Formats: sequence, structure tokens, C-alpha cells
Amino acid sequence: MLMTAKEYTDSLRRLKLNLYLLGEKVDNWVDNPIIRPSINAIAMTYKLAHESQNEALATADSIIAGKKVNKFNALFESTDDLVKKVKLQRLLGQRTACCFQRCVGMDGINAVFSTTYEIDQKHGTDYHQRFREWLKYVQENDLCISGAMTDVKGDRGVAPSEQADPDMFVHIVERKNDGVIIRGAKAHQTGTANSHEMLIMPTLRMREADKDYAVSCAIPTDAEGVTLVYGRQSCDTRKLEEGDIDVGNYNFGGQEVLVVLDDVFVPWDRVFMCGEIDFSIMLVERFAAYHRQSYGGCKAGIGDVLIGATASAADYNGIRRAAHIRDKLGEMIHLAETIHACGLACSYEGWKTTAGNYQVNTLLANVCKLNVTRFPYELCRLAEDIAGGLLVTTPSEKDFRHPVIGKYLQKYLRGIPDVPTETRYRMLTLIHAMSFGLVAPSYRTESMHGAGSPQAQKIMIERETDMELKQKLARSIAGIDERENVLA
Amino acid sequence: MLMTAKEYTDSLRRLKLNLYLLGEKVDNWVDNPIIRPSINAIAMTYKLAHESQNEALATADSIIAGKKVNKFNALFESTDDLVKKVKLQRLLGQRTACCFQRCVGMDGINAVFSTTYEIDQKHGTDYHQRFREWLKYVQENDLCISGAMTDVKGDRGVAPSEQADPDMFVHIVERKNDGVIIRGAKAHQTGTANSHEMLIMPTLRMREADKDYAVSCAIPTDAEGVTLVYGRQSCDTRKLEEGDIDVGNYNFGGQEVLVVLDDVFVPWDRVFMCGEIDFSIMLVERFAAYHRQSYGGCKAGIGDVLIGATASAADYNGIRRAAHIRDKLGEMIHLAETIHACGLACSYEGWKTTAGNYQVNTLLANVCKLNVTRFPYELCRLAEDIAGGLLVTTPSEKDFRHPVIGKYLQKYLRGIPDVPTETRYRMLTLIHAMSFGLVAPSYRTESMHGAGSPQAQKIMIERETDMELKQKLARSIAGIDERENVLA
Amino acid sequence: MLMTAKEYTDSLRRLKLNLYLLGEKVDNWVDNPIIRPSINAIAMTYKLAHESQNEALATADSIIAGKKVNKFNALFESTDDLVKKVKLQRLLGQRTACCFQRCVGMDGINAVFSTTYEIDQKHGTDYHQRFREWLKYVQENDLCISGAMTDVKGDRGVAPSEQADPDMFVHIVERKNDGVIIRGAKAHQTGTANSHEMLIMPTLRMREADKDYAVSCAIPTDAEGVTLVYGRQSCDTRKLEEGDIDVGNYNFGGQEVLVVLDDVFVPWDRVFMCGEIDFSIMLVERFAAYHRQSYGGCKAGIGDVLIGATASAADYNGIRRAAHIRDKLGEMIHLAETIHACGLACSYEGWKTTAGNYQVNTLLANVCKLNVTRFPYELCRLAEDIAGGLLVTTPSEKDFRHPVIGKYLQKYLRGIPDVPTETRYRMLTLIHAMSFGLVAPSYRTESMHGAGSPQAQKIMIERETDMELKQKLARSIAGIDERENVLA
Amino acid sequence: MLMTAKEYTDSLRRLKLNLYLLGEKVDNWVDNPIIRPSINAIAMTYKLAHESQNEALATADSIIAGKKVNKFNALFESTDDLVKKVKLQRLLGQRTACCFQRCVGMDGINAVFSTTYEIDQKHGTDYHQRFREWLKYVQENDLCISGAMTDVKGDRGVAPSEQADPDMFVHIVERKNDGVIIRGAKAHQTGTANSHEMLIMPTLRMREADKDYAVSCAIPTDAEGVTLVYGRQSCDTRKLEEGDIDVGNYNFGGQEVLVVLDDVFVPWDRVFMCGEIDFSIMLVERFAAYHRQSYGGCKAGIGDVLIGATASAADYNGIRRAAHIRDKLGEMIHLAETIHACGLACSYEGWKTTAGNYQVNTLLANVCKLNVTRFPYELCRLAEDIAGGLLVTTPSEKDFRHPVIGKYLQKYLRGIPDVPTETRYRMLTLIHAMSFGLVAPSYRTESMHGAGSPQAQKIMIERETDMELKQKLARSIAGIDERENVLA
Repeated sequence: MLMTAKEYTDSLRRLKLNLYLLGEKVDNWVDNPIIRPSINAIAMTYKLAHESQNEALATADSIIAGKKVNKFNALFESTDDLVKKVKLQRLLGQRTACCFQRCVGMDGINAVFSTTYEIDQKHGTDYHQRFREWLKYVQENDLCISGAMTDVKGDRGVAPSEQADPDMFVHIVERKNDGVIIRGAKAHQTGTANSHEMLIMPTLRMREADKDYAVSCAIPTDAEGVTLVYGRQSCDTRKLEEGDIDVGNYNFGGQEVLVVLDDVFVPWDRVFMCGEIDFSIMLVERFAAYHRQSYGGCKAGIGDVLIGATASAADYNGIRRAAHIRDKLGEMIHLAETIHACGLACSYEGWKTTAGNYQVNTLLANVCKLNVTRFPYELCRLAEDIAGGLLVTTPSEKDFRHPVIGKYLQKYLRGIPDVPTETRYRMLTLIHAMSFGLVAPSYRTESMHGAGSPQAQKIMIERETDMELKQKLARSIAGIDERENVLA
Repeated sequence: MLMTAKEYTDSLRRLKLNLYLLGEKVDNWVDNPIIRPSINAIAMTYKLAHESQNEALATADSIIAGKKVNKFNALFESTDDLVKKVKLQRLLGQRTACCFQRCVGMDGINAVFSTTYEIDQKHGTDYHQRFREWLKYVQENDLCISGAMTDVKGDRGVAPSEQADPDMFVHIVERKNDGVIIRGAKAHQTGTANSHEMLIMPTLRMREADKDYAVSCAIPTDAEGVTLVYGRQSCDTRKLEEGDIDVGNYNFGGQEVLVVLDDVFVPWDRVFMCGEIDFSIMLVERFAAYHRQSYGGCKAGIGDVLIGATASAADYNGIRRAAHIRDKLGEMIHLAETIHACGLACSYEGWKTTAGNYQVNTLLANVCKLNVTRFPYELCRLAEDIAGGLLVTTPSEKDFRHPVIGKYLQKYLRGIPDVPTETRYRMLTLIHAMSFGLVAPSYRTESMHGAGSPQAQKIMIERETDMELKQKLARSIAGIDERENVLA
Repeated sequence: MLMTAKEYTDSLRRLKLNLYLLGEKVDNWVDNPIIRPSINAIAMTYKLAHESQNEALATADSIIAGKKVNKFNALFESTDDLVKKVKLQRLLGQRTACCFQRCVGMDGINAVFSTTYEIDQKHGTDYHQRFREWLKYVQENDLCISGAMTDVKGDRGVAPSEQADPDMFVHIVERKNDGVIIRGAKAHQTGTANSHEMLIMPTLRMREADKDYAVSCAIPTDAEGVTLVYGRQSCDTRKLEEGDIDVGNYNFGGQEVLVVLDDVFVPWDRVFMCGEIDFSIMLVERFAAYHRQSYGGCKAGIGDVLIGATASAADYNGIRRAAHIRDKLGEMIHLAETIHACGLACSYEGWKTTAGNYQVNTLLANVCKLNVTRFPYELCRLAEDIAGGLLVTTPSEKDFRHPVIGKYLQKYLRGIPDVPTETRYRMLTLIHAMSFGLVAPSYRTESMHGAGSPQAQKIMIERETDMELKQKLARSIAGIDERENVLA
Repeated sequence: MLMTAKEYTDSLRRLKLNLYLLGEKVDNWVDNPIIRPSINAIAMTYKLAHESQNEALATADSIIAGKKVNKFNALFESTDDLVKKVKLQRLLGQRTACCFQRCVGMDGINAVFSTTYEIDQKHGTDYHQRFREWLKYVQENDLCISGAMTDVKGDRGVAPSEQADPDMFVHIVERKNDGVIIRGAKAHQTGTANSHEMLIMPTLRMREADKDYAVSCAIPTDAEGVTLVYGRQSCDTRKLEEGDIDVGNYNFGGQEVLVVLDDVFVPWDRVFMCGEIDFSIMLVERFAAYHRQSYGGCKAGIGDVLIGATASAADYNGIRRAAHIRDKLGEMIHLAETIHACGLACSYEGWKTTAGNYQVNTLLANVCKLNVTRFPYELCRLAEDIAGGLLVTTPSEKDFRHPVIGKYLQKYLRGIPDVPTETRYRMLTLIHAMSFGLVAPSYRTESMHGAGSPQAQKIMIERETDMELKQKLARSIAGIDERENVLA
């Protein structure tokens, strides 16, 4: 069953989330104007599966469910599947101009799939079969899954088991006959308050003492003991105002939630790792590699919208053909395409896991992400350069609609004569949303910290490189080792 | 008379501004929570004049008023005065962590002073004497002056007189016996709705047909025909919420206003340029040079706060001594100090105008500003890197105060054990304010476009360079021209 | 027939090149110590074809010759072929640490192949068949082909036919019954004085008046009327000195030659374009796209050697594990891999031409090359940072071998005790060769200008982007066009 | 006595240097074509002292000698003296287009002057008086002094006294009645083989066990036991060829020498530090600060020549007015002026030492130098971009003069018609010299490592910043500490 966007949205109404926003418990969260855009963004992932021209990207044939399923719940069964993922993400970035939040689940599914297989091989456990069952259920019901990895972490210099407060990383507080009880919190969760289930994973390498922290499992987002607190976003309350302009991106938006797990029970058939500290880092790194690939899709797509908006702002100012404007727009395109090229390359160069699904090239995925921690910032800077100061000084939509001063704004905020002032104003608020406002966390901070901060990528790049080979090459050329005899 | 901060604030109550904000006319604008922080920021310029340890920077002996006046109303009578200006600006940036808005007036005063002198020399007019009288009045009453240069400009490819709408640049619509009537609008005006007077200046080079657009004059901010429309800022309505944390910088903020001049009468003794198109660009460039210098002060000072906040965030995460954190903090300092070094250099290398006040070195002032269009963005990026994702995902203050979920946030958003969660939360909202929120327009966009966009600096740098000398040097070294005989 | 490296080298002895070097005609150019390393570099392309582990990359089955041929003479018959090309280039960069010069021919062959097909389709000519015959001959004899595109150009602001000297672009000076006579010069020709034949191509878009300049053909490198003048390279005469250290890369090197064509006769069966100005730019751009892809291979491979050498230099100084050294090495890897990722991406995303061979994705190939104009420079800068000042202050090999002072150098230029001084010295001269010396033109300047200067890539990136789509996306999100109804 | 350039050059002939170059002892080193350009560069510092228009920069009134002395031997007696130093350095960079080598002595003189004063204050020694006597002798005879700080260092991870070979840092091997005997080697010494004396200083912080390594003293460059080995430079032997073009900068050049001190005797009156480990780092840091300032002068001046050469190359290609060329030239100017602005700023902000001479602002001097480790590289990259590939492919001067092929080069390497080919060729070889050849070590590597590598600057920037103040500012703004009441 492939849900439509509407079916997905309606399905959320059946969830009894324990969700707080701006200091209040929200009951009808589906229609809440602050939350709704983030639901719409995920809904787009359902919509595309029904568009004939995009179906090939947005769906996949599942060997698990034995039918066509949404791409976001599918395993990557080839490098081509990995490439399609990145292209789908670019498309969705273009259509929503924000984080569409469902990738964490997709990446988590694939990482847990291959890791559980290898745990079972070594430890004789049956996590993989449990996971396949759960995944089948997810695919068949076309559920939206929120991947949950990042713990709140407390003191970054101290291991999970050594924190002053033992709950700074999610952990098992009790093992029972029928399941486990977990406690802790997951931070910066994109797309939890619009998902049906959470797939919980550990967040870093574990040592012996951290045994209870090596836990992966699935729980409904409205399970007992779960509390969600909605994060503030820049300019969030503009969504509560009348009008549709000042918010910049009226329809779509991201979402980050703090998920508190206050003694949540998880039955055994939903537990996929339970103390296997030797596999914690494998799960983390496989997930991270996938998710670092992801940014080579979505951030290029969001960039496309920003580039288009910026070019339009230049049009409206009458300076689009000026050499320095063209040069800067060209640079913006160059940076967005570099990101995408890295996303494609790590996909094409993927490899098959023992479990049978495909993993991206780890080195190139990290290279992709490290570029993502830099280039969207420069894209925003260039957009601000071209858009001009009005980006941050334009009055409110209410002023534009005002009987007395509205005419002043209409008159004086016009650019070239044949473009209505409101058109220019709308384009500027979109750019504002992307560089300062509601989309900025999606486009900037998520690019920085999503799937790990830049230092994490630097470390992986160092580790994934065969430096010994490089040094051997240098020694041979330098004549320290014997030089190659090309005629031999 | 040097007003205290309180006297200044009270003095504003006597102004009858015609001011609109978020679609409504604001009567008690002095106490309006959105506007008040920008008044406080200017008030700080008054406060410093009374602090014994800062008096030397914040005041100056005026040859015009014959007494000590506020630095912001003073002429630069030496290069040392120019240096003090930059140091004062850094101090104010440190104390307010935002744009304190009064520099445009100071820079305008000095530019009009020297330009009027030269107009009179050439054209036999008496603008300079008029201006001295007005300046004496300003100094004696310690008024706050808003410099008003940037027109709304319409189609950027077309001269003022050729615009479809002739009002896209402020111009004289009528010359009368007792004065002139002007019409148009000035955009992005920092600090108009907290100033007593505006000093109007033209915004670009004029040609013969633009004669009516070459106008400089002074008007009260509440003159008849003046309408002010307050610009939206990122997260502006957080100031209307309960609590003091989410706004990030509770006390201080910038302000940008659209100033509409709908047939405003200006008596002759307040008119300082009226049709002298040959001096329009001189006035613009002298002002611009001063103002490009200014950013070498204020943006370094705001940067100091951001660096301090970022280092603190790293402290609270327990990772301050990590090598990559230290390296990035070092880079932030390096960038902020490079800006300041350029601000200092163009000041020390200033020159005396015919009128007797001092102008900064134009080339170095443009170099300063061009760096400012780049480095604060990188400072923000590095701050985001170090601060971590919580920067954009932390819930609201109301959530922190909430009886049910408050305890979760207290528990889970803690960093190292010995720092209260609220401390960490406050520091993160400050960084948020500077990179996304209320201060971000001051720190980012103003750095980009204030005193002219980067392309304007590129053009000036090209023009101010003696390329012929450089080519001559190269020709001599290369032996194209005769080589220098060092022994001769 | 696949020649061995030795057979190739010997085959060159049969060519009667008219070659000048440092002011003298060189007869035994094959054994000339300045020229020989560039022959060795090409010889490596022959050697790899015989290595079992690299044969899959270094050879291809040709539909033209009906047998296995050297990859450098093969058509790209799939995207996989394009990918293999880039991987082969990286391998060769690693094995030679310099430009191996044979790619221009390979890229030219593929561009002329598809362009002649389309010329024939439109104009009813038979260029394509002629070209296939010539290519078959080339493949069967395993010849080395030098692609020759870049004209000397004279005044860059003026078209070929409008130059003061009509010979600034290669052109037809006479059409005869049996062929054409051409005149002009091709500059910066990598690998002509070690190739058997040249494949001549036009260098830019032509207009009606430039008809005689739209010429493509093949000639032997020792044809009558051809004069080759060997370009100087940094530190070229170190190859004439005793010893093998100071040259840095003793075995391998690039080569650039000025090719003067002083009325060279070309028979019709070797003429592949003759006046079809409407196809000049197609040929140029197809060649350029291939060649911009190429740099995503070779420059990454050369970078590998530089990274390995730099890491070794840090080892020898005892500081390899210092955080700042690791960070900079990580950055070097990141930059080299970003280039390679772009090279891979444009290959995987290739497309089939009408003629049947495959062309790379033009946009991504240009993105690849634009990064190449930047990153090798930063790699060199970082290498210099880590290697230390000794890089440019170390004495000569003769000093090291000197009976009196040799012992001082042995003693004082040692790094960590367990690495011989000479080892350290050799590694430093290698880095020197790559950033200043014999390899620097290959690694730096060629990265900048090979396959077109950065501005050419900027223009192509602008042109290859669907900006209208991007603007449409932005208009929809901004609500200027109708917003997408996600639930519809 | 102020020597003329000729007198200086002649005075060198009286020195009996024990100097090796390319494996041979050089007797007439003054007229050696490889060495002479570096003598000419220093001679320029003598010449300027006699030029009326530059005398104010190039000389100073000495309180020690009681007369006018060469600036390079003078104490900085005011911040104005510091500023003049930087301006003189820019001028010399413009006139020589290379390192003029005499700054190390000037900076060493000033650092030893103030440090000896403070040693004496603490330890009751009489180093300062000895130093004044020596300095008086130097000033009166207008000697050229080579500052000698950088030891060869061996294993960078190990202290001087813990090295496997105790001679890796210069140290005292014997204390005698009449003086000390020192052993070791100083590396990368700019301008020793054209100086009369060396001023030896320690290179890093010392600990108790390193007592013998804390030594500063003066020795003649031809003292018994001193051996100089001339470092290779890129393209050094071009100076031995006929013709004057290929070398790029025919008249001037830098010089780096390895100085071996094989048991050199130093009488007590020339010993200025002998075991005072507590002052070693002060001396190092004071010297380093001066020398980091220096680069804000010379590298800007050399940059001026490179900019002029690059603009000329664009002229000769007929593309100087193209927007992208102007933009890149503007960027080059911007970068060079940023360096200079930092050099000026740290000078103007200098401070008076206890001994009475002036020290630069340490923080800003380090900021200056850190920019210098980056910007000249980008200047070279942009120069290469604009100059075009011919930069590294142009044949030799001998080819240009050749009776047969000379005419081809004249014809085909011409740019715009009205500029002779040789003019273009000369300009390209100058750019080549600066980015690859003889000047490149001066302009690139010295910018990186001279006065300490970039990491040294990062550490100093961190240390010189008042981070506690910045954090306090942030805490106040954030409301963690009490917020400032602006009305109070």
C-alpha cells in the first residue's frame, strides 16, 4: 500500500502524541500552523510516489514486502538504488525548499539491516530476522519512520557510563522477560512529531562499561513514556500571523524535536541491538555514511531554489546581466553542483554488505558532507550579496496591506517597473527564510551538524585513506624506495 | 551639554514621530518592546560619554561649539580622532553586541562639513556656514542625528531622472523663497526612529539631468510629511513574548526604517546642497569612506561578543581544549582582528581636507569594508560549528519554565555538570541571535551592504590604486624599461 | 598490437622530428635527459596495458579495430568506459607524479569521432568515415596521438580572421586536389615531441569570415613544415646535472611544445573538418568536456603522491601526530577526493552521442575542472606549510656528496634520528618539484589553464544550468506562481 | 658614516667567507652570478639612504651613535619609527621584487636591545651595555647584520638538550676566561653570505636542562669555524646562462644559507645572553613580533610588482578591461593591501619597552603574519590565472635569439600587435620568477615560514587575546551575569 499525501496526513491524526510546543501541550498538532509545514514536507515524499514521472525515483520494489514500497522505506539493493536516492533527495529539496525529514529513517533502516545481520553472524542472535519482520510491517503500512540517533550527550569529554547523570545517553534501565525498558533523550530529532515510529540507534563507539547504552529498537512515537518538545526555529511565530508572505516558505518547513524517553517499554521483537558494544560503532558509521551522502542530494536541491530566488531578485533589481552578478550566480551553481557531484560519486562507488544491501563509499560520503558544512554558508552569503539590504529591512505584510502606508510601500519598494512590488517582496522573504528564517536551520545548521559535525568527517577522511599507499608512491618517485623501471 | 542616557531617552518622548510597525501606527514608541532595544543601543553612546574611563574616546572638544561634545557629533580634527572613533566603535560593539546606529550621523556630519566647504569655494555658495550653524545647534543640544543616504533606487540600471517613477531618488520638487520641498524615500535607515534629526544626502553620482536629485539638508525626524515604517527583523516578535532568554540579546538591538518623505519643506538654512551635481559623488564617497572605516570598529566589537559566547558554549560542552576547537576559536579571533587592523590602518593613514577636518585613507577604508563583507559570515559559520546543533533546536523559554516538561529540559539539555542548564541555554540563544535572529541583520547583512555593497568596494579599490606605478615597477624589474643600476 | 613501453620508446627513434630545445636543434631527442622523462611518462601508459592487474583499466575492446587496443586510443562506448578512464588517470598520476600527456589525444579522438558524424549528417560530407579509417590505423599500430587545439591567439579580443597577423590561428592557406595546406602554430602542446601523430582541432567558435580557420586533420609529428620548440620548465636544467636528487622526480615529467606549422600539406583522407564553421564550437566543447573530466583523475593521482610526500616529511620531522598537521593532511585528502568525486560523477552521468560513443555530463565536467583550478594550489600551500622552510633552502646534491661539507649536511639536516638525512632530503626535493620545480607546471598551471581557463568553465556552468527551472521553483515556493498543493 | 651601495659591495670583498655553492668553495663570491643578485638586493638598502626622497624612511637619528644611521641598524624609538619601517619595507619590496634580507638583523637588534636590558635588571648582568657598544660599532661602520635564530632542530618533538645529537641547536660547548665556544648550525639564514656580522639568538623556549642553549652573541661572518652552504633555489642556474630574460628578475634575488658553527670562539664583550633560560622565550617572541610585522611591508611591496606585472600581461593579451580580469586584479590589490594594513596597524599600536625602544602590538603582528601565510599564495594563483599558460611553456631566450626559429617565436608569441613579443615574454618570465622561480621562495615559502610557521601565529593569537573579557561581555549580554542597565 502506498499512502497518498492525504492518507499520510490523516493517519497522523490517529497518533496520540505527547507533544509540547512553546510551553503548551498541543492536542491537534496536525493542524497546528507551526507544525503543519513540516507535515507537508513529509507528505511530499508520499505524493511523489504517485507521480508517474517521479515514481521510478520515489518507489522501489521490495524483496521484503514483495511489492512496490516507498523509497524511504526501501533497502538499497544496488548502487543504482543509491544514486536514485540522491536524485530523489535533490528533487524533494527543489519541491519543498527545506528539510523533508524522512531520510534519517531510510538511512537508519539500511544501516540497522546490515548491522543486525553481522551481529547475528558473530553473536548467534536473531536481531536481523526481528528487524526484517518490523521492516515488512513498516513497508506494508507505508509508515513514516524517524531515525533517532543523537543523544543529548552532556559532557562531551566523558563516556556514556561516566556521565554525572547516567541518562545523558539512551540506555536500558531494565531487562524483562517480555522486553526492555529504556531511558534517556534524543536531541535535534528531525521529523519525529510527524512520524509513526522511531528507530532508535546508539550515537557513538561504546566500551565495556557502556554495555547498557548499546541499544537499538523501534517504538511508536506515541508510546507510553515518550514526550516530545518542539524546538524553536528562527521566526517560528510568523506562521501564527495573518498573511502568507513574511514566513517566506509558507507551505513547507523542517522540524526538530527533543524526544524524552522516560522509561519506555520495548518488546523483544522490536529490539535490534542490546548490549553488543562491538557493533555500536559499525551501526553509527554505516548510518552516518548514508546520511552524509544524503546531503549531496537535498542540500543541492534546496540550493537550486535559493539560486533561482537570487537570480530573480537580481532580475527585479534590473542587474541580472551585470558581470559581477553573473559571476556570483555562477559560483553559487558551482558550489551546489560540487555537493551533488560528491553525493553521486559516493553512491555510484557503493559496495554490497554481507546482508545484501548496498553501502555508499565511506570516504567519498564524508568528503561530500565536509563540503556541505561549508558551501551552503557561502551560497547564503552570495545570495545576501545579490539580494541587497532590503532582505532584512522590508516591513511586514501587514504594512503592505495597510490602508495608509501600503501605497508608500507599493510605490517605493518597487524594483524594475514591470514587476509588481509584491513579487519582489515575496522573493526577498523567501531568501530571508532560507538564510535567516524558518528554513535556515535546515539549510545551514543541519548542513553543519546533521550526520555529524565537520570534525567527525575530518576524522573519517583520515581513517578511510590509505596513507601508507600514498607514502609508498612518494617514496618510489623520490627514489627512497627503488624507482619503477618503466621499460622493464 | 552632554545628555545622560536617561535624558536622551526622555528627550525622544517629545518627538511626534509618524511611525508604523507591523501594520499599526505606534504612539508610545519609546516604550515599545520591539523598538526599545534600539533606543537602548543609542543610549549607550550617551552613557559612555559620562564614564570616566571611556570619556576620552566618547567625547571630543569641539572647535564649533567651543566645548566638549559627544564624539558622534564631533568633527575629526586629527588622525588620532579617527583612531579614537574606531576604538570607540569596537567598545560599543562589545557593550551592545549589535548595531548602535549613531555612526551614520557622525560620518555624514564629517562628509557634509568638508564637501560644503569645497562647494562654496567653487560655486560661491554659503552652504558651509549654514552647516556649521546647524552643527553647532546639534552639538550644543547633544542631539542624535540619523544620516540618510540610501535611496530606494527602483531599477538599478537607470539614472535617477530616468526612472519610470521620478520619486525613486529623493529630489527637490519645488524651490520656494523660504526653502525647498523634497520628495522620495530613504531605505534601510538605521537609527531614524530614535534620532532627533535626519541629515539627508544624495546616494550616487549625478549627471546634468539629475540636478534636482543633488540635494543635502537636515530635517527633524518628526517633520510634517515624514512617515517612518519599521522594518521586520528576524525573530522580532520574540521581544513581545514573556521572558528574556529567547530573544538572545534582550537589552540591545538595531533598527532599520523606511523613511518616506512626502513633500517635506526644508528652510534654506538647513539646505546644504541644492543642485550641485558636480559635488554629489564627492559627498557620497567621503561619507562611504568614513562609514567603511566604521565597520572596522563595530563589527570587531560585535565579533568579540560572538567569540566569547562561542568559547563559552565550548566550555559548557566540555570540549574547549580540544585542538580543533582551539584552532577554530583562533581563526575567529584572527578574522575579527584583521577587520580591526584595517579599520585602524585607514584611520592612522588619514588626511586633512581643505575644510580642516580629517578624512580616512580611502583605499584602506575600502579594503577594510571588503573584508567585512566576508569575515563576519565565516565567524558565524565557525560559531555554529562549535556551538552545535542545539543552537537551532532548543525549545522555548516557556518550555523551560513549564511545570511538567521543564524538569526534562533542565535534565537533558545540561552540558558539563557544574554549569546550570539555563546558563548554557542563554549562551546558545545569544549565538542564535547573532547568526540567525535579531542581531544577525546587524552583524551579517549590514556587514555586506552597509556603506555600499562589495562590488562598490571592488570598484573603489581599483580606482584608488596607482596601477601605473605598479606596472612601471614591473617593467623596470623585467628589463622592459631600463633596469635600476643599484650601484649608480 | 599493444606496444610495450620499450617498443614505444624505440618506435620514437624512427621519427625525424624537427625539434629545438634551449636554442639548439636536438637530433637524438629520445635520449636527451631533459626530454626523456616525458617519454617515460607516456611509456607508462603503454606499460600499464601489459600489467594484468591494470589491464582492465588500461585497455579496451575496439569496435573499430576489432581487437583490444590501448585505452588512450579507444572510444568511450559506455559510461563505465568513462569511469574507467578517470580511474586509469588517477592510477597514472600516482605512478608518474606528473602529466602523462596522452589524454589530449584520447579526448580529441572521441570528440572528433562524434562531431564528424554530425557534420556528415548535416552537410553530407564523409569526414566520419575518413576519421574511422585513420583511427583504425592508429589503434592497430598503437600510436601515440597528440591532440592539438590551442592556437597562439594573438590579441584575445579579436576573431581569427581579424587578427593583424592572419596566422595567429591555424588555418587553410590553400585547397588543392589532393589535400590542403595549413599554416599557424599550436601552443602549450603537451606531449607532441613524444607522439607519432598530431590530431589538429580548432580552438574556438567561428563566424562566417573565419571559414578557413575551421579545420581539423591529422599529421605525423615529423611532417614537412613542422617545427617543434620545447618550452622551458622550472628547474629544467637540473636534469643535466649529475645526481638524481635535486630534480625531485627523476624518472618522469611533462612536456610542453610550441608547434609551428609552416605550410604543412595534409592529404584529404586525413582532413576531418574543412570550413564547417557551424561545428567548430561543438568540437571544441566536446573535447573540453572530456578534458575537464580528465583532471578529475590525473590531478587527484598526482595529489596522492604529494599527500604521501607531505605526510612523510611530517614523519621525518617527528610531528606527524600533531593535531594541526593531521588536520591539514585531512584537508589535503579532502580536496583531492573532491576533485576525484567530480571526475567520477560527470563520467557516471555521461550520455550517448548520435555517433554512438559516450560524452560526459558537461555541467559536472566543468564543475570538476573549476575545482581543479583552485584545489591543487591549496594542496601545494598546505604541503609547503607542513614540509617547512627547508623545502627551498636545502643545498645541492653535490654539497651532500662533498668530502668537506657533506658531513655537515648529513649531521645538521637530519630530522628524527632513525631516518637517514638523505631520505628526508629526497622527500623534500620531491615536494619542491611538485610545488616549484619540474612538476609544478603539470600540477598547478595545467590545472589552471589546461582544457580552458577558469572563466571558460564559469561561462559553461552558467550556460549548462537550467536557470529558468530554478526560478520557477522559487516562484512557486514564494507564492508568486501558484503554490503546490501537496494534498491534491 | 652611511656607506653607498658601491662601498657596501666593495666592503664585502674584504670578508674571507668560507662559503660553498653547488658543491664548490667559492672564492670570489661577490661577483658570482648566482650570489650577486642577493648582494644587490641588500645594496638597495644602502642606496635608499642616499636618496633624498627616501632618506626619511631609510635612515634614522641614533641616540647610540649620536648621528644619522641606516634604518636597518637603528632602534625603533617611537611608533612612528615602526610605521616608517613597514613603509620602507614596502618600498624596498617594490624596488627589488624579492627579499632584501636585511630585516632579520634590524629586528634582532631591537629584540636583543630590550631583552638584554631586562636580563640585566633581573640578573645583575651587563649584557645590555655590551650590546650597546657592539651596536654603536655596527652603526658607525654601517655594517650589514644578519640575524640568526632558526636552529636546524632535528626531531621537532624533542627539547634541545634531549636530542639524539646535542648539536641540533646552537649551544655553548665551553666557557673560557675570555669568552665562549659555540657549536651548532642555523638554517634558512637569509642574507648571511652578504653580511658583515651575524647576531645569534636562541630559537625557542628553554628549560633548566637547556641552559647551554640559551645563547645570544655576535660574530663576524668570516670568523674561524664558520662554514656557509648556499641553498639551492628554484631555477638558480638560469643565472649562469647567457642572456637576462629567463631568470625573470635579473638584478635582484634572495639568499638562504646553512650556517655551520664548528666550535666558534666568541669573546665576552660580544656575548649577550649566556644561560639565562628565563629570557630565551622573551627574546624569541620580541624578535618574532617584529619580524611578523615586517612581512606587512615587504610582501605588500613584492605584491605590487606582481600585480603590475599581471595587469601588464593582461594588457598584452588585449583583455585587461574584461570584467573578470578587473575583478581578479582588484582582488589581488585587496589582498596585498590587507597585509599592509595589518603591518601598519601593529606598528601604530606599538608600545615602549623598559629599555626605551618600541615593540609592535604582538596580537596584530601575529594577525598580520597569519594573513601573509595565505594571501601571497592566492596572489600567485590569480597571477597565473590571468597570465595564461604561456607562463610555463615559453621557450628559452636562446630560442628567441636563434637564427632559424627566433622568427617563429617573434611571430607566434606576440599578443596585441603594438607590443613587441619580447616585452610580453619578459613580463611572463618575471611572473614566472615570482610564482615558480627565483623569487618564489621569497614570496611564497618565506611568507609561510619566515618568522615562524602559521601554527606559531595561531598559538600567539590565542595567547594574546583576552578571552576572559570576551566571555564576560557575552555573559552580560546573555543575562548570565547581570545585564548592564544603560539608564543607570
